[in-house]
Amino acid sequence: MREEVRRIALRLAYDGTAYAGWQMQATERSVQGTVESALQRIHGQRVSLTGSGRTDSGVHARGQVAHFDTDMEGIPAEKFSLALNRHLPGDIRVMSSRQVPPDFHARYSACWREYRYYLLPRRIADPFQRPFCWARRDLPGPPVLNRYAAGLTGSRDFTSFAAERDESKSKVRRIRSAAFYPAEGFTVFRIVGNAFLWRMVRALVGTIVERAVRGDDPAVMEEILAAGSRDAAGAAAPARGLFLHGVYYDGIIV
Amino acid sequence: MREEVRRIALRLAYDGTAYAGWQMQATERSVQGTVESALQRIHGQRVSLTGSGRTDSGVHARGQVAHFDTDMEGIPAEKFSLALNRHLPGDIRVMSSRQVPPDFHARYSACWREYRYYLLPRRIADPFQRPFCWARRDLPGPPVLNRYAAGLTGSRDFTSFAAERDESKSKVRRIRSAAFYPAEGFTVFRIVGNAFLWRMVRALVGTIVERAVRGDDPAVMEEILAAGSRDAAGAAAPARGLFLHGVYYDGIIV
Repeated sequence: MREEVRRIALRLAYDGTAYAGWQMQATERSVQGTVESALQRIHGQRVSLTGSGRTDSGVHARGQVAHFDTDMEGIPAEKFSLALNRHLPGDIRVMSSRQVPPDFHARYSACWREYRYYLLPRRIADPFQRPFCWARRDLPGPPVLNRYAAGLTGSRDFTSFAAERDESKSKVRRIRSAAFYPAEGFTVFRIVGNAFLWRMVRALVGTIVERAVRGDDPAVMEEILAAGSRDAAGAAAPARGLFLHGVYYDGIIV
Repeated sequence: MREEVRRIALRLAYDGTAYAGWQMQATERSVQGTVESALQRIHGQRVSLTGSGRTDSGVHARGQVAHFDTDMEGIPAEKFSLALNRHLPGDIRVMSSRQVPPDFHARYSACWREYRYYLLPRRIADPFQRPFCWARRDLPGPPVLNRYAAGLTGSRDFTSFAAERDESKSKVRRIRSAAFYPAEGFTVFRIVGNAFLWRMVRALVGTIVERAVRGDDPAVMEEILAAGSRDAAGAAAPARGLFLHGVYYDGIIV
């Protein structure tokens, strides 16, 4: 009898503070490597895990999606979350697990990715906010910041906001929405796009905040995009404020 | 010229996860000890710090209040927060500092103390919620829980909810309000009283949840209070869900 192979998708939340990012590294602790270790504990053999994309060192996730293939019987797809959480540290949680079709791919099937960046318009962040936001007492309000974000939607070339190490051939990305809004004392930047270049969200936030604080004409954002050079934009905002909020697929909710 | 001694009150927020509680200990790391070390760094000599009360190992605070006396010149009272935060680890923050009258006492002048206990009515808490709540999938809703909390207000003898180590002579405490309400996915128990016995809030939450899950008649709470014995009540809820939310003084906002 042929063993049935199932493809399982996981929705993962993690506090990225203690990790060198999503991707497995030779020497440092990665989220992917930690979850693969838990998969190995359950399967008794190495199982590889494919994520929707990398998150950088120190970046968090509420809704990272990843898939793996399993020939294990006896564990219903929905119970992998519990089984894995038993072997995972508290700063990584599998929020749900479900079987997906064999051609589902966490990275290539993804239609949209949503990031949120948390800014705190105060000087002192309390110990509960501090690891998860960028506190700036001089932060302008959402209406001002939104003037700088207004032109980001549509298909644009984001070369000026890509880290030098970004290896994508095309730097054009399609942004569905990009806006600042107030939420529970924070100012949140929410951006939804088909995909993102390396460090792109942090470069956008860092640049918008820098220019808005300085009081530049919001038209400067068009000039920076047109320059097609990383030097035109500002410094990247700190990793600790950034969350991969969710990854969205056609017809499948993980 | 006589040196002017000023009394300074601090409002402190801390993530209690890594601490053996507020009170200084011979061997373990305490919040009080950590802040006193920062005071010593600034003053070049030992400065003692008096808190509004102890918080237990693993309990958090958003609004602990403490005072100290200083003869240092050159630091305005409001700047002690910045000066101390420079020497404190990120899981303790001084949210504000201000000069108070010399007869102000963080413990004895306190009129009301407010605690909040965070319950999560789900099986899996994400990594951002997990260190700060008690996740119970079987948790009844606030209207049900409030039937058990309804009789706690007024001046009552809380002997049944005091840890054995509690050394207070009178176990009567005056509770101004005690109620469960929903907030951002959590069920929060908010309790305001003149003072609290050792482990009292956690014993109340643990007992109410236990009895409500079991479906006991809410009148059982009166029986437990009347019994005057710790054995009558249930196990204390975990420390990680409890926050000292604030301490209130007559005419002074710290």
